[in-house]
Amino acid sequence: MNKIEHIGIAVNSISSAADIYQKLLNTPVYKIEEVASEGVKTAFLQNGPNKIELLEAMIDNSPIAKFIAKRGEGIHHIAFDVDDIEAEMQRLKDEGFVLLNDTPKPGADNKLVCFVHPKSTNSVLIELCQSM
Amino acid sequence: MNKIEHIGIAVNSISSAADIYQKLLNTPVYKIEEVASEGVKTAFLQNGPNKIELLEAMIDNSPIAKFIAKRGEGIHHIAFDVDDIEAEMQRLKDEGFVLLNDTPKPGADNKLVCFVHPKSTNSVLIELCQSM
Repeated sequence: MNKIEHIGIAVNSISSAADIYQKLLNTPVYKIEEVASEGVKTAFLQNGPNKIELLEAMIDNSPIAKFIAKRGEGIHHIAFDVDDIEAEMQRLKDEGFVLLNDTPKPGADNKLVCFVHPKSTNSVLIELCQSM
Repeated sequence: MNKIEHIGIAVNSISSAADIYQKLLNTPVYKIEEVASEGVKTAFLQNGPNKIELLEAMIDNSPIAKFIAKRGEGIHHIAFDVDDIEAEMQRLKDEGFVLLNDTPKPGADNKLVCFVHPKSTNSVLIELCQSM
Protein backbone atom coordinates (compact mmCIF):
# COMPACT_ATOMS: atom_id res chain seq x y z
CA MET A 1 0.00 0.00 0.00
CA ASN A 2 1.61 3.22 -1.23
CA LYS A 3 -0.48 6.00 0.32
CA ILE A 4 -4.01 7.04 1.17
CA GLU A 5 -5.48 7.43 -2.30
CA HIS A 6 -8.65 9.08 -1.02
CA ILE A 7 -11.09 9.43 1.86
CA GLY A 8 -14.73 8.83 0.91
CA ILE A 9 -17.30 11.08 2.64
CA ALA A 10 -21.03 10.29 2.45
CA VAL A 11 -23.09 13.46 1.95
CA ASN A 12 -26.74 14.28 1.35
CA SER A 13 -25.97 16.68 -1.49
CA ILE A 14 -22.85 16.79 -3.65
CA SER A 15 -23.56 20.37 -4.66
CA SER A 16 -23.72 21.79 -1.15
CA ALA A 17 -20.88 19.58 0.14
CA ALA A 18 -18.68 20.52 -2.83
CA ASP A 19 -19.11 24.16 -1.90
CA ILE A 20 -17.97 23.40 1.68
CA TYR A 21 -14.99 21.21 0.74
CA GLN A 22 -13.79 23.58 -1.96
CA LYS A 23 -13.59 26.28 0.73
CA LEU A 24 -12.05 23.92 3.28
CA LEU A 25 -9.31 22.63 0.97
CA ASN A 26 -9.02 25.83 -1.05
CA THR A 27 -9.14 23.85 -4.31
CA PRO A 28 -11.86 23.15 -6.91
CA VAL A 29 -13.70 19.88 -7.53
CA TYR A 30 -11.82 18.44 -10.53
CA LYS A 31 -14.22 15.68 -11.49
CA ILE A 32 -17.86 14.71 -10.98
CA GLU A 33 -18.66 11.14 -11.98
CA GLU A 34 -21.58 8.76 -11.59
CA VAL A 35 -20.92 5.09 -10.74
CA ALA A 36 -24.19 3.49 -11.82
CA SER A 37 -23.27 0.03 -10.48
CA GLU A 38 -23.01 1.51 -6.95
CA GLY A 39 -25.95 3.93 -7.35
CA VAL A 40 -23.72 6.85 -6.44
CA LYS A 41 -22.57 10.23 -7.71
CA THR A 42 -19.00 11.21 -6.76
CA ALA A 43 -17.02 14.46 -6.71
CA PHE A 44 -13.23 14.55 -6.28
CA LEU A 45 -10.92 17.20 -4.82
CA GLN A 46 -7.13 16.90 -4.85
CA ASN A 47 -5.11 17.60 -1.70
CA GLY A 48 -1.39 17.13 -2.37
CA PRO A 49 -0.83 13.39 -2.96
CA ASN A 50 -4.34 12.55 -1.64
CA LYS A 51 -7.96 13.09 -2.66
CA ILE A 52 -11.29 13.66 -0.99
CA GLU A 53 -14.23 11.84 -2.62
CA LEU A 54 -17.72 13.14 -1.85
CA LEU A 55 -20.42 10.48 -2.30
CA GLU A 56 -24.14 11.16 -2.86
CA ALA A 57 -26.68 8.34 -3.21
CA MET A 58 -28.58 8.29 -6.53
CA ILE A 59 -30.95 5.48 -5.51
CA ASP A 60 -32.61 4.61 -2.21
CA ASN A 61 -31.09 1.15 -1.72
CA SER A 62 -27.51 2.09 -2.61
CA PRO A 63 -24.76 1.51 -0.02
CA ILE A 64 -24.41 5.28 0.56
CA ALA A 65 -28.17 5.74 1.10
CA LYS A 66 -28.11 2.91 3.66
CA PHE A 67 -25.03 4.34 5.39
CA ILE A 68 -26.62 7.81 5.72
CA ALA A 69 -29.95 6.33 6.89
CA LYS A 70 -28.12 4.47 9.66
CA ARG A 71 -25.34 6.88 10.70
CA GLY A 72 -25.96 10.21 8.97
CA GLU A 73 -23.42 12.05 6.84
CA GLY A 74 -19.73 11.44 7.57
CA ILE A 75 -16.58 9.57 6.66
CA HIS A 76 -17.51 6.42 4.76
CA HIS A 77 -14.22 4.74 3.82
CA ILE A 78 -10.44 5.00 3.46
CA ALA A 79 -8.95 4.00 0.11
CA PHE A 80 -5.32 2.93 -0.20
CA ASP A 81 -3.39 3.05 -3.46
CA VAL A 82 -1.81 -0.28 -4.47
CA ASP A 83 0.36 -1.28 -7.42
CA ASP A 84 -1.01 -4.81 -7.86
CA ILE A 85 -4.51 -5.18 -6.46
CA GLU A 86 -4.74 -8.95 -7.01
CA ALA A 87 -1.49 -9.56 -5.11
CA GLU A 88 -2.62 -7.25 -2.30
CA MET A 89 -6.02 -9.00 -2.10
CA GLN A 90 -4.26 -12.35 -1.78
CA ARG A 91 -1.89 -11.01 0.89
CA LEU A 92 -4.83 -9.67 2.94
CA LYS A 93 -6.80 -12.90 2.57
CA ASP A 94 -3.76 -14.83 3.79
CA GLU A 95 -3.60 -12.47 6.81
CA GLY A 96 -7.24 -13.29 7.66
CA PHE A 97 -8.99 -10.15 6.37
CA VAL A 98 -12.44 -10.59 4.83
CA LEU A 99 -12.79 -9.14 1.31
CA LEU A 100 -16.15 -7.92 0.02
CA ASN A 101 -15.46 -8.90 -3.58
CA ASP A 102 -13.56 -11.89 -4.94
CA THR A 103 -12.19 -10.09 -7.97
CA PRO A 104 -11.32 -6.40 -8.54
CA LYS A 105 -14.18 -4.32 -9.95
CA PRO A 106 -14.26 -0.97 -11.78
CA GLY A 107 -14.66 2.03 -9.43
CA ALA A 108 -14.76 5.80 -9.86
CA ASP A 109 -11.81 7.82 -11.17
CA ASN A 110 -10.39 5.06 -13.43
CA LYS A 111 -9.61 2.57 -10.69
CA LEU A 112 -9.90 -1.14 -10.08
CA VAL A 113 -11.16 -1.55 -6.53
CA CYS A 114 -11.81 -4.07 -3.79
CA PHE A 115 -13.35 -3.47 -0.36
CA VAL A 116 -12.30 -5.08 2.93
CA HIS A 117 -15.11 -5.95 5.36
CA PRO A 118 -15.15 -3.51 8.34
CA LYS A 119 -15.65 -6.40 10.77
CA SER A 120 -11.98 -7.31 10.28
CA THR A 121 -10.68 -3.70 10.58
CA ASN A 122 -12.21 -2.12 13.73
CA SER A 123 -15.37 -1.04 11.86
CA VAL A 124 -13.42 0.88 9.21
CA LEU A 125 -14.40 0.23 5.59
CA ILE A 126 -11.14 -0.08 3.64
CA GLU A 127 -10.85 0.14 -0.15
CA LEU A 128 -7.88 -0.97 -2.20
CA CYS A 129 -7.51 0.82 -5.50
CA GLN A 130 -5.19 0.38 -8.44
CA SER A 131 -5.02 2.85 -11.33
CA MET A 132 -6.26 1.41 -14.64
CA MET B 1 -3.40 22.34 3.26
CA ASN B 2 -0.58 20.17 1.92
CA LYS B 3 -1.83 16.61 2.33
CA ILE B 4 -3.72 14.27 4.62
CA GLU B 5 -1.34 14.10 7.57
CA HIS B 6 -3.22 11.24 9.21
CA ILE B 7 -6.55 9.53 9.71
CA GLY B 8 -7.55 9.01 13.34
CA ILE B 9 -9.33 5.74 14.15
CA ALA B 10 -11.06 5.24 17.51
CA VAL B 11 -10.46 1.72 18.87
CA ASN B 12 -11.26 -0.16 22.05
CA SER B 13 -7.74 -1.54 22.41
CA ILE B 14 -4.54 -0.15 20.88
CA SER B 15 -2.78 -3.48 21.30
CA SER B 16 -5.29 -5.54 19.33
CA ALA B 17 -5.90 -2.80 16.75
CA ALA B 18 -2.15 -2.31 16.26
CA ASP B 19 -1.86 -5.99 15.40
CA ILE B 20 -4.60 -5.62 12.76
CA TYR B 21 -3.29 -2.40 11.20
CA GLN B 22 0.31 -3.64 11.12
CA LYS B 23 -0.93 -6.58 9.04
CA LEU B 24 -3.20 -4.41 6.90
CA LEU B 25 -0.53 -1.82 6.06
CA ASN B 26 2.38 -4.27 6.24
CA THR B 27 4.37 -1.84 8.39
CA PRO B 28 5.11 -1.60 12.14
CA VAL B 29 3.72 0.90 14.64
CA TYR B 30 6.56 3.45 14.90
CA LYS B 31 5.36 5.36 17.95
CA ILE B 32 3.03 4.92 20.92
CA GLU B 33 2.30 8.12 22.80
CA GLU B 34 -0.11 9.25 25.50
CA VAL B 35 -1.78 12.65 25.25
CA ALA B 36 -2.84 13.25 28.85
CA SER B 37 -4.74 16.46 28.07
CA GLU B 38 -7.06 14.48 25.75
CA GLY B 39 -7.18 11.36 27.93
CA VAL B 40 -5.99 9.24 25.01
CA LYS B 41 -3.28 6.79 24.04
CA THR B 42 -2.18 6.89 20.39
CA ALA B 43 -0.26 4.59 18.05
CA PHE B 44 1.06 5.71 14.66
CA LEU B 45 1.74 3.77 11.47
CA GLN B 46 3.30 5.34 8.37
CA ASN B 47 1.79 4.76 4.93
CA GLY B 48 3.80 6.58 2.25
CA PRO B 49 3.26 10.32 2.84
CA ASN B 50 0.37 9.66 5.25
CA LYS B 51 -0.18 8.13 8.69
CA ILE B 52 -2.83 6.14 10.50
CA GLU B 53 -3.35 7.13 14.15
CA LEU B 54 -5.06 4.60 16.41
CA LEU B 55 -6.76 6.20 19.42
CA GLU B 56 -7.68 4.43 22.67
CA ALA B 57 -9.45 6.22 25.53
CA MET B 58 -7.53 6.29 28.82
CA ILE B 59 -10.34 7.85 30.85
CA ASP B 60 -14.12 7.43 30.70
CA ASN B 61 -15.05 11.02 29.86
CA SER B 62 -12.44 11.55 27.15
CA PRO B 63 -13.61 12.52 23.64
CA ILE B 64 -12.65 9.06 22.30
CA ALA B 65 -14.58 7.25 25.07
CA LYS B 66 -17.64 9.37 24.27
CA PHE B 67 -17.27 8.75 20.52
CA ILE B 68 -17.05 4.97 20.99
CA ALA B 69 -19.95 4.95 23.46
CA LYS B 70 -22.11 6.74 20.88
CA ARG B 71 -20.96 5.25 17.56
CA GLY B 72 -18.65 2.33 18.29
CA GLU B 73 -15.15 1.93 16.90
CA GLY B 74 -14.39 3.59 13.57
CA ILE B 75 -12.89 6.57 11.77
CA HIS B 76 -12.78 9.51 14.16
CA HIS B 77 -11.14 12.39 12.23
CA ILE B 78 -9.12 13.50 9.21
CA ALA B 79 -6.02 15.60 9.90
CA PHE B 80 -4.55 17.88 7.24
CA ASP B 81 -0.95 19.06 7.28
CA VAL B 82 -0.56 22.85 7.15
CA ASP B 83 2.51 25.10 7.06
CA ASP B 84 1.08 27.96 9.13
CA ILE B 85 -1.73 26.83 11.41
CA GLU B 86 -2.65 30.32 12.62
CA ALA B 87 -3.03 31.61 9.05
CA GLU B 88 -5.08 28.55 8.09
CA MET B 89 -7.31 28.96 11.17
CA GLN B 90 -7.95 32.57 10.22
CA ARG B 91 -8.70 31.62 6.59
CA LEU B 92 -11.23 28.98 7.71
CA LYS B 93 -12.87 31.35 10.21
CA ASP B 94 -13.23 33.92 7.42
CA GLU B 95 -14.88 31.22 5.26
CA GLY B 96 -17.46 30.56 8.01
CA PHE B 97 -16.07 27.34 9.52
CA VAL B 98 -16.44 26.86 13.28
CA LEU B 99 -13.16 26.12 15.09
CA LEU B 100 -13.12 24.10 18.31
CA ASN B 101 -10.14 25.95 19.77
CA ASP B 102 -9.20 29.62 19.47
CA THR B 103 -5.46 29.04 19.54
CA PRO B 104 -3.36 26.06 18.39
CA LYS B 105 -2.72 23.45 21.09
CA PRO B 106 -0.09 20.70 21.43
CA GLY B 107 -1.20 17.35 19.96
CA ALA B 108 0.38 13.94 19.53
CA ASP B 109 3.45 13.34 17.34
CA ASN B 110 5.01 16.80 17.87
CA LYS B 111 2.22 18.82 16.29
CA LEU B 112 0.33 22.01 16.95
CA VAL B 113 -3.32 21.25 16.25
CA CYS B 114 -6.74 22.81 15.89
CA PHE B 115 -10.07 21.05 15.28
CA VAL B 116 -12.92 22.24 13.04
CA HIS B 117 -16.45 21.58 14.29
CA PRO B 118 -18.13 18.75 12.32
CA LYS B 119 -21.35 20.74 12.06
CA SER B 120 -19.67 22.92 9.44
CA THR B 121 -18.12 20.00 7.48
CA ASN B 122 -20.89 17.41 6.83
CA SER B 123 -20.31 15.70 10.20
CA VAL B 124 -16.60 15.13 9.55
CA LEU B 125 -14.23 16.11 12.36
CA ILE B 126 -11.30 17.90 10.72
CA GLU B 127 -7.94 18.54 12.38
CA LEU B 128 -5.32 20.98 11.18
CA CYS B 129 -1.79 20.12 12.21
CA GLN B 130 1.52 21.89 11.88
CA SER B 131 4.84 20.26 12.73
CA MET B 132 6.55 21.83 15.74
